Amino acid sequence: MPARSDLANAIRALSMDAVQRANSGHPGAPMGMADIAEVLWNDFLQHNPANPQWPNRDRFVLSNGHGSMLIYSLLHLTGYDLPMAQLQNFRQLHSLTPGHPEYGYAPGVETTTGPLGQGLSNAVGMALAERVLGAQFNRPGHEVITHHTYVFVGDGCLMEGISHEACSLAGTLGLGKLIAFYDDNGISIDGEVDGWFTDDTPARFRAYGWQVLSGVDGHDPAAVRTAIEEARAEQVKPTLICCKTVIGKGAPNKQGSESCHGAPLGTDEVSAARQALGWRHEPFVIPEDIYGGWDARPAGAVREQAWEQAMADYSEAFPELAAELRRRLAGELPAEFATQAQAWVEQCQAEGQSIASRKASQNSLNSLGPLLPELLGGSADLAGSNLTLWSGARGVTREDASGNYVYYGVREFGMSAIMNGIALHGGLVPYGATFLMFMEYARNAVRMAALMKLRTIFVYTHDSIGLGEDGPTHQPVEQLTALRATPNLHTWRPCDTVESAVSWKAALERSHGPTALVFSRQSLAHQERTPDQVAAIARGAYILRDCEQHPELILLATGSELQLAVEAAQRLAAAGKQVRVVSMPCAELFMEQEAAYREQVLPSDVLARVAVEAGHTDYWYKFVGLDGRVIGMTTFGESAPAADLMQHFGFTVEHVLAVAEEVLLEE
Amino acid sequence: MPARSDLANAIRALSMDAVQRANSGHPGAPMGMADIAEVLWNDFLQHNPANPQWPNRDRFVLSNGHGSMLIYSLLHLTGYDLPMAQLQNFRQLHSLTPGHPEYGYAPGVETTTGPLGQGLSNAVGMALAERVLGAQFNRPGHEVITHHTYVFVGDGCLMEGISHEACSLAGTLGLGKLIAFYDDNGISIDGEVDGWFTDDTPARFRAYGWQVLSGVDGHDPAAVRTAIEEARAEQVKPTLICCKTVIGKGAPNKQGSESCHGAPLGTDEVSAARQALGWRHEPFVIPEDIYGGWDARPAGAVREQAWEQAMADYSEAFPELAAELRRRLAGELPAEFATQAQAWVEQCQAEGQSIASRKASQNSLNSLGPLLPELLGGSADLAGSNLTLWSGARGVTREDASGNYVYYGVREFGMSAIMNGIALHGGLVPYGATFLMFMEYARNAVRMAALMKLRTIFVYTHDSIGLGEDGPTHQPVEQLTALRATPNLHTWRPCDTVESAVSWKAALERSHGPTALVFSRQSLAHQERTPDQVAAIARGAYILRDCEQHPELILLATGSELQLAVEAAQRLAAAGKQVRVVSMPCAELFMEQEAAYREQVLPSDVLARVAVEAGHTDYWYKFVGLDGRVIGMTTFGESAPAADLMQHFGFTVEHVLAVAEEVLLEE
Repeated sequence: MPARSDLANAIRALSMDAVQRANSGHPGAPMGMADIAEVLWNDFLQHNPANPQWPNRDRFVLSNGHGSMLIYSLLHLTGYDLPMAQLQNFRQLHSLTPGHPEYGYAPGVETTTGPLGQGLSNAVGMALAERVLGAQFNRPGHEVITHHTYVFVGDGCLMEGISHEACSLAGTLGLGKLIAFYDDNGISIDGEVDGWFTDDTPARFRAYGWQVLSGVDGHDPAAVRTAIEEARAEQVKPTLICCKTVIGKGAPNKQGSESCHGAPLGTDEVSAARQALGWRHEPFVIPEDIYGGWDARPAGAVREQAWEQAMADYSEAFPELAAELRRRLAGELPAEFATQAQAWVEQCQAEGQSIASRKASQNSLNSLGPLLPELLGGSADLAGSNLTLWSGARGVTREDASGNYVYYGVREFGMSAIMNGIALHGGLVPYGATFLMFMEYARNAVRMAALMKLRTIFVYTHDSIGLGEDGPTHQPVEQLTALRATPNLHTWRPCDTVESAVSWKAALERSHGPTALVFSRQSLAHQERTPDQVAAIARGAYILRDCEQHPELILLATGSELQLAVEAAQRLAAAGKQVRVVSMPCAELFMEQEAAYREQVLPSDVLARVAVEAGHTDYWYKFVGLDGRVIGMTTFGESAPAADLMQHFGFTVEHVLAVAEEVLLEE
Repeated sequence: MPARSDLANAIRALSMDAVQRANSGHPGAPMGMADIAEVLWNDFLQHNPANPQWPNRDRFVLSNGHGSMLIYSLLHLTGYDLPMAQLQNFRQLHSLTPGHPEYGYAPGVETTTGPLGQGLSNAVGMALAERVLGAQFNRPGHEVITHHTYVFVGDGCLMEGISHEACSLAGTLGLGKLIAFYDDNGISIDGEVDGWFTDDTPARFRAYGWQVLSGVDGHDPAAVRTAIEEARAEQVKPTLICCKTVIGKGAPNKQGSESCHGAPLGTDEVSAARQALGWRHEPFVIPEDIYGGWDARPAGAVREQAWEQAMADYSEAFPELAAELRRRLAGELPAEFATQAQAWVEQCQAEGQSIASRKASQNSLNSLGPLLPELLGGSADLAGSNLTLWSGARGVTREDASGNYVYYGVREFGMSAIMNGIALHGGLVPYGATFLMFMEYARNAVRMAALMKLRTIFVYTHDSIGLGEDGPTHQPVEQLTALRATPNLHTWRPCDTVESAVSWKAALERSHGPTALVFSRQSLAHQERTPDQVAAIARGAYILRDCEQHPELILLATGSELQLAVEAAQRLAAAGKQVRVVSMPCAELFMEQEAAYREQVLPSDVLARVAVEAGHTDYWYKFVGLDGRVIGMTTFGESAPAADLMQHFGFTVEHVLAVAEEVLLEE
């Protein structure tokens, strides 16, 4: 049986060799955390390499994702389907081993990490999901959802503000099965952290209500083992284990300095490290006894088998609950969802209410929510403004986690990354809200949801200068543009209750990508539609009001500006003009439609086009071209009542008419 | 002489009345913090209402900016040029009293606040600027820069992650003249914070190395006064004064609950509050004795006069230093800057180096830095990658703050908001860097710089998939689009050393707006230019390579893709095509040029246009229209060597040629 240090050295060797071969990467963190990882994975981690999707597995997150060779080494060594050839192809195009761990590439990577602090926040989300799901489904004697979430973090993660947001909330909610390991090596990219990071981190985390085990020697397996046992014994408080480590441990001339953080060690130092570690094997050669010491497949199979037995017992005792749990873990919506949601859309069309789209959103939640016990909603301290609470919403608390609504506090970035963690965990569909402006505080988590193709639903209300008196700090201008330019993200800006209902239906049914639902503060006019038009909303853009002949002019609009386009078109039609109005609640979805449909809606021979949206003009040239016009924002807003602002910035029927007539004259 | 409580009640009355009249706003915070503000402003704050620009004034920041009526009341009462009519016009178009305090509107507002946590971070920047400027200019017996920075914060500010970043750094740097008041009222918008915010905030701030004075009764002037004295006595540690307060104090039926946070009290409750407070005056009527108790003009005049005398003595003892200080406080660049910077641009053209633009940026810093002692640089723990350290850079430390470079740590948002605070303070020109991707962590601070029109210079390197192996988490795609859509911001993406030098010159000379300088990781080819072309760079876009006749095709490009356009144009020219290449390093600046110049560069009759940029395609339709093509990104990147990625995503001369030929065929 190999010594623990030999097992850990396998990680060190694979990491330094892969980085050297790629001539790019970060050897310092994997070599520094190898001993901790070895103890955690070999003595504690409950997983099954043969089935990375086993629902009750412990979650492991490498928040300091630049140390990706650590997790690739672990996955390879413990028996995941990640052959050595993939490690040899580290950081190459189409390998399973990109520079940072990417969700959906190597099996066993639970989340994409690299943007610091977010992995930690994803882990909080996973631990929260476990807690909520367990509270909803476990029954006495039947603990079918019960696992730990482990996360490795570096100095960078702890300097980032998001660590404050997520860890503060984790303490408040009492996520006792969350265990974080702090790689306290005293080094960040600019050198020794004393000059810029002097927090008393243990005191900080105790202030959040965490258990903190400080001063653990991260290179002493017995000490690490004791700490993990102590962490697991604590049921209520999350635990931070502060491990003193040496970055690049094993590289005799570079360890302990920033020089081994983010660059290959160099062939000489790699040789010296082999010598120092007593690792006599060639690059990418792992002896059988080392593989044997790491192999987690037999124990994993036993574990999953035991869980399947527990599920079978549970199914017998609680057949409906068990079926529901399996459905939710599979990420499938209830069978009746599609038809009931469609009925709700049609009901909205029939009722014809003119209300704020944030209110329409709440109505949709009230209608669809009862169908969807998997919803886990929330807001960053704006529940009453975002209107994200619905009749069936019940708070998740420290004492009772069986609810379906999280009071996230004023923590937009933390909320969004936690939502991503919830979506990654499975069994729950997270939605969370803030004002559209404060999407910016959370911007990179929205991008990460899109990169990972998660079903995370971001609700953004108060979507333009239409919010009024709070002024330019709160009035979005360029935010829609930023969202729409994000690959994989769908951004909806509905114009009335019907489009709002369709947007919720689409977001919920979109199982492989996030959605931003953008709603108004102010009331919006109901639009008349035929059944065909109602059906066409789901295509992202459609003809809402047409003319008898081929159009001379097309007005495009979204959200609160749609009614201006409709009224302008009516006046132009009365004056004998052939004017079409296109409603475009989700431009990205429209761009995914077949060319024939797009040509039908926006015929390429109609160059007289005017787009109207109380957002930045830049985006719309894509649809109106050099001959068209955009009525939008090019400056920041102002503080005033909404009606005054709409007038001031030119969002009036008269202005739309004036611009339309200009364009018609030019053609 | 009125009682302190009467003075404080003037704030309460003005706040509740103005919110009531506007039928919109936040009475809770001003009413809750009125007593604290009264003690601070009447007993301690060193300012001169007659000259809000007095350089050595204490800075006061209302980080919980929704409580704007607090600061408007204070400014009005103490004698700033903010007449009662403005308070009566609270939240109306073109008033000086917008919903949140906006820099540049009411005199005495030091920064725009509202987006939570950023005012606190601006205050850290102001305190840092005071410390650095003092260390650079003060001499024994001549303390010409020495003032405090006071900041009010609410629960929201302290929940936001940015508070962690900024306050951790403030502790490390020992900003002893920073004093924060925590409005600990136990309420946020969703209600009592116990459910989502249970931090031991005093312990948290002690962990940052702050002095914390906890348990202060925020409605007891004597207790507040003692705390402020204790805070001012501490020279090294910043101080947090935790004040227990009652939100909406004085409104008998609503105080202490979230109902008074963000909505008018209602006329009945306003009457009841008048009764409870013993405030017998009509709305917007302040008796003379109350005005008398608040008037800060006489003492302010004496204070500024004393400082002018100190400056006169200083000028006598250190004439050059004094002149330099006055220049820097006025925000003027050295007289010789423009010519020397122009010479540097021309030298870059003459030398013709092909290097990474991040390296070109560093060369520009090395060339221009010695002229500019006002530069205060930095990086969020990426100095060696961003190349923001230059030969004359010297770190600002806790022990010696006279340097010109801040090691911000891994704190992008904190850094950016701190930079805004530095720019607001005056006397220093901040630049700070991270990877372009992690602009997103700081995104709203960039917007705030633009909203406030500050000379803040954001340096963003590793600007595309060209960064290579670190993969999609680190590869910008949509970030340029987001920056360019931000009003008032100039975004530069230079193609070589010459454009890089011009971009730095432009950013430094742009005294009323922020600039984003976007640089490559990888080497970029030098471009030949005539002197006229060199001069035209400053117009944002220019003809870099032209044809003999009217162009059949225009290729537009920026940064690393410019060379592809040039090579494609050469090949097309060799095949007899008339092709123009337009380099567009700063599109926003180009859009500010007169129409004739824009028409000259991009003649409207040339519809065959191809834009090439390794960023999101959406932005470029503004310039190529419906007939043109964009070679850009529509998906996320991948992890691989940069050259492989450029090939994979179509950034090759062959692909540009193929697309160009398609477009030419269509015309």
